[in-house]
Amino acid sequence: MPDRFSEDLLLANQTGKRLYREYAERLPIIDFHCHLLPREIRENRVFADLGEMWLGRDHYKWRVMRAFGIDEKYITGAADYREKFLAFAKILPELIGNPLYVWCALELKRYFGIDEPLAAGNAEDVYWHTREMIARENITPRRCMEKSGVEIVCTTDDPADSLEHHIALGNGESGGPRVLPAFRPDKSLYCEKPHFPAYVAELGKASGIPIRDFVDLVAALEKRLIFFKSFGTTVSDAGIEDFDWHAATAEESGAIFKKALAGQPLDPTEIATYRSAFMAEMGGLYFRHGFVMQLHVGTYQDANRRGVREVGAACGFDCTDDSTTVRSIGGLLNRLNDAGTLPKTLLYPLDPCRLETFAILAGGFCGGGRRGLVQLGAPWWFNDQPYGILRQFEAAGTLYPAALSVGMITDSRSFLSYPRHELYRRVLCAWLGSLVEKGEYFSGEKALKTIIENMCYNNAKTFFGF
Amino acid sequence: MPDRFSEDLLLANQTGKRLYREYAERLPIIDFHCHLLPREIRENRVFADLGEMWLGRDHYKWRVMRAFGIDEKYITGAADYREKFLAFAKILPELIGNPLYVWCALELKRYFGIDEPLAAGNAEDVYWHTREMIARENITPRRCMEKSGVEIVCTTDDPADSLEHHIALGNGESGGPRVLPAFRPDKSLYCEKPHFPAYVAELGKASGIPIRDFVDLVAALEKRLIFFKSFGTTVSDAGIEDFDWHAATAEESGAIFKKALAGQPLDPTEIATYRSAFMAEMGGLYFRHGFVMQLHVGTYQDANRRGVREVGAACGFDCTDDSTTVRSIGGLLNRLNDAGTLPKTLLYPLDPCRLETFAILAGGFCGGGRRGLVQLGAPWWFNDQPYGILRQFEAAGTLYPAALSVGMITDSRSFLSYPRHELYRRVLCAWLGSLVEKGEYFSGEKALKTIIENMCYNNAKTFFGF
Amino acid sequence: MPDRFSEDLLLANQTGKRLYREYAERLPIIDFHCHLLPREIRENRVFADLGEMWLGRDHYKWRVMRAFGIDEKYITGAADYREKFLAFAKILPELIGNPLYVWCALELKRYFGIDEPLAAGNAEDVYWHTREMIARENITPRRCMEKSGVEIVCTTDDPADSLEHHIALGNGESGGPRVLPAFRPDKSLYCEKPHFPAYVAELGKASGIPIRDFVDLVAALEKRLIFFKSFGTTVSDAGIEDFDWHAATAEESGAIFKKALAGQPLDPTEIATYRSAFMAEMGGLYFRHGFVMQLHVGTYQDANRRGVREVGAACGFDCTDDSTTVRSIGGLLNRLNDAGTLPKTLLYPLDPCRLETFAILAGGFCGGGRRGLVQLGAPWWFNDQPYGILRQFEAAGTLYPAALSVGMITDSRSFLSYPRHELYRRVLCAWLGSLVEKGEYFSGEKALKTIIENMCYNNAKTFFGF
Repeated sequence: MPDRFSEDLLLANQTGKRLYREYAERLPIIDFHCHLLPREIRENRVFADLGEMWLGRDHYKWRVMRAFGIDEKYITGAADYREKFLAFAKILPELIGNPLYVWCALELKRYFGIDEPLAAGNAEDVYWHTREMIARENITPRRCMEKSGVEIVCTTDDPADSLEHHIALGNGESGGPRVLPAFRPDKSLYCEKPHFPAYVAELGKASGIPIRDFVDLVAALEKRLIFFKSFGTTVSDAGIEDFDWHAATAEESGAIFKKALAGQPLDPTEIATYRSAFMAEMGGLYFRHGFVMQLHVGTYQDANRRGVREVGAACGFDCTDDSTTVRSIGGLLNRLNDAGTLPKTLLYPLDPCRLETFAILAGGFCGGGRRGLVQLGAPWWFNDQPYGILRQFEAAGTLYPAALSVGMITDSRSFLSYPRHELYRRVLCAWLGSLVEKGEYFSGEKALKTIIENMCYNNAKTFFGF
Repeated sequence: MPDRFSEDLLLANQTGKRLYREYAERLPIIDFHCHLLPREIRENRVFADLGEMWLGRDHYKWRVMRAFGIDEKYITGAADYREKFLAFAKILPELIGNPLYVWCALELKRYFGIDEPLAAGNAEDVYWHTREMIARENITPRRCMEKSGVEIVCTTDDPADSLEHHIALGNGESGGPRVLPAFRPDKSLYCEKPHFPAYVAELGKASGIPIRDFVDLVAALEKRLIFFKSFGTTVSDAGIEDFDWHAATAEESGAIFKKALAGQPLDPTEIATYRSAFMAEMGGLYFRHGFVMQLHVGTYQDANRRGVREVGAACGFDCTDDSTTVRSIGGLLNRLNDAGTLPKTLLYPLDPCRLETFAILAGGFCGGGRRGLVQLGAPWWFNDQPYGILRQFEAAGTLYPAALSVGMITDSRSFLSYPRHELYRRVLCAWLGSLVEKGEYFSGEKALKTIIENMCYNNAKTFFGF
Repeated sequence: MPDRFSEDLLLANQTGKRLYREYAERLPIIDFHCHLLPREIRENRVFADLGEMWLGRDHYKWRVMRAFGIDEKYITGAADYREKFLAFAKILPELIGNPLYVWCALELKRYFGIDEPLAAGNAEDVYWHTREMIARENITPRRCMEKSGVEIVCTTDDPADSLEHHIALGNGESGGPRVLPAFRPDKSLYCEKPHFPAYVAELGKASGIPIRDFVDLVAALEKRLIFFKSFGTTVSDAGIEDFDWHAATAEESGAIFKKALAGQPLDPTEIATYRSAFMAEMGGLYFRHGFVMQLHVGTYQDANRRGVREVGAACGFDCTDDSTTVRSIGGLLNRLNDAGTLPKTLLYPLDPCRLETFAILAGGFCGGGRRGLVQLGAPWWFNDQPYGILRQFEAAGTLYPAALSVGMITDSRSFLSYPRHELYRRVLCAWLGSLVEKGEYFSGEKALKTIIENMCYNNAKTFFGF
């Protein structure tokens, strides 16, 4: 019975083991979607301890702690981070099969050199050991990125954001990774939310374009997009709860916008129509300015409303929605393609049962001489675990050329989360190895090297033009 | 080519094999959901032969016999049980991959010591051998339970039931397993069915509360729930075809109830609204009285109506529905949680594609310091087979702490079905073993022992307060 | 690192390897659903080169070429077939995990004896070698069928078709495979399409029955069905985009038909009602004339409309729809079963997430002493790859007796696609072998032989009455 972290983690076949060691392990990381705070990167914030780093804002951990019946005090409440760390460490041995188990194991090993299993018995020791190490070895955001070979990081930013921290960070001249903004205009998408009119005013101010109608809104967003682009980014993003394609005339979308701006209530059809029109406009902008359109589809935001009221939004009370049909996203892609303005697109369905239909949809919209034009994004959120990654390779890879994939992202708020790329690469190499060993691939070593380097690094670089 | 039952069944890795032998194999069984008839347990009914035990009411077998083109006479018809047994035995060698194959193998081995494969050639011998053994060794319901180490069995009972057989059975004082009732108010849920008014009258009589409005109905059910609770049970259950959450005021649900009671036709929205209101009321009762709410969701009852007319309901003509969205169940959970009355809940989606979204939903509603508050139930009905069990561990286990699971149930009408727990334990240990062997778990032997004992026994005991 | 085609392809366990060699490998092929052109079989068309054979009309290859950013000129455009072949060969080493990789490997090996991997480096050589071989060894449609042991081929034909090529081909008397027509009345199903009235006139002429109402339409189709039957075929087929069961009276369906015939626009409910009525009528005809009803459900036709406009329909721009519920197909089956006219039925859900619910649905409608009456069809289109085939065995096989399956089809437009049967047989034997090796089956060699021979050959022969 092994009782230490193993460097063979997930590499269940000989070929995969070798492929990982020789080609995947040391590739740099391009993390083109995450939720790190630019300010903290800029300030290179020093966290007090591993409790803060792990439990300060990781809703994955909060969820399982709640599932284990731990008092909220030790999750998001008044307890100090040492107490929170101990509370979490106590349940870790029971997290078998859960991605947190391997994430924590890899983070302890890669950043702190610990390869024994964390549990109640050694939690106090590990706490003080890591605390001392964080201070002594200066384990800061930039140090984590450096240790993990991170080359580029894209944060997630509102169009109205001043990007002051990105400006201050420069463009990686100081030797660290390039930190680029990503354009995420969600606040302009959710026209039915109470804060919409106020946000539109804020965007108007940020862009210098007074926003009176839908055309103004798009113009303001375009101006900000150009500002974002000046940083060298080509990444956009949309977090779409559910999507129901409704084609609309300019008059219709304009009228709905005016109602929304006036704070009037909208019916479901109006909301769906506005979302459709908005995404079509954004897609057009992305195409014209060479941006990649990322569509994160299928969240069930704030499912547990009491949890949100008592603890907050994005604190572990979101779930997965299963209502967005493939035709809804197909409608958007078709509209953009018809108009000749289909940008490079990454589709992230959150419901794992949509993986196959979305992979097939992506394949139907490729063309125009553009490599990997529409494709699945990385296994996202709940799907970001060895089983989900393998499922995506197996299920979707048979339906779309997996070798075109632009690879993994952390999608994380934590500076310690780069081992998720390691996990992806391990699962990838194990999958490739098993195909080779079953005779399903025999094009040889060099071709496999290319595939691995492309999927883990080169494809992202080329796709985003970094 | 093996031609005998193997004790290594499903234990495809060394670690799993050892874990099963050392920790799982001999644990007692808590079967908290089944469809055994209390009368037959009480009377300790002696079945005539294995034909009657296997084919008297097992719709799983009936379905495959129909698929093989066997005449209904030998399925549910006039043939005697010997003939039916021979007809079934003949197709058994063709049931590769079907759970019936391993279920039958385990039942022959565990209760009759037979390890050779059953087929046309030896069916007559096996028939007479088992017939003689049933009589000689007195293979009765209670003997089967004893042989399988069954500690607690929960039947499924209507709130209007007198529970006379449970009363007669006592509370396990006589040495056998505790036989507890479970509270299943489905007849009050399906307000649109023709028998509804008559049933409500019956419930009124049983409870001593004349039911004139929805408030009376809930009061009558609460009175019966308290009666059920006096037996020491905390198990409730709902079989929900499809569910579409519609929040309703007390006036609305009251008005719909009155229409239903008067036998007036209801439109789909009224039905959905009533179901929502009813389940919300029940959830509140369960919370207040410390019951567990089990939601079995997604049956396509009586899909083959001619089959139902000619043979009967629940005789193999039900299928799986795919229409209940995750938001429908989310709406109910959210309502209960908002009201502070969310009981412990087990979600059983019948459509295997909903496993992941429901596991995620469960995770979003945990909290309040209650361990495993909302979680997936066991792989249910069509999902109760090695592939489905593993899928639940792999898919859902990554999304919710699998170690919190309250484990397996037979959900069966047969006294011979306890090997389904064995199957679950074998798949569990094989899964755990493979995680260990791939380096995905290294917290050691003792932690694994705890996980296995919890998932197979302790969690159920604690969760239900048995 | 293997760099040659291996005869152990996909046979990952010893038992499976042996089963494949001994029982599966040499069985003849019944390909009861394909899209070969009868004229080309009749004329035994000699293709110029492998470029034409591979890239002349294979939308699978076209799709991945587009995904790789290859210019449409080298896909469906003006480039010659040598150039197209070279363009495709160049990306082949990157098609890891994609079914095209193993399909191409098997086609090169089985028809041309090539076992080295095709890539940019040897593409020119392979091109000229295969070109010379096609001419020298006369690798024609009939030669391919002969090499692959094809016994029966069913094309896909419109009821108005004269079947002149089938007539000319005779009934296999000349020594080649029997080439049978299959009855596919899709043009009568899509009443909302612009060509519908013209098509109805054409069908009227072909049948000699002037079609003025819905009753005439059914009569004309029945007359053509009888004509088809005279060839010895019992195969029908329907390609159903989406299906939403709406029971209709004869008056209602008649009225909608008249509107459609007059070219008047139909609303979604009318279209759904007509489709329901039409399929119910067809099912009745199939039952009365001993035909098998194949339902191919869930295509998202022409998702990329610009692609269709610029390149054409069925050129790789179709995707998978996820909207057809299990109750829609259940409604049709129930109606037919109620009327006592449920024909043998094969269900092909295109969305892989529906596999389980449709397998369960099939099981609910078996009966009447007819073996395998309703069952899943082969893994279809996007699901036709090792992962999809295994998924169907694992997922659906647990829900329906897999041993009743009538086996594989090519569903292809290419004369080189018979290795898809080989792939199916390899995955089948590997699956069976793994069940044996895990102790999930121990009925012995002879029973396994029967299962394999049935699933690969006998079941199809019996089911269709060939």
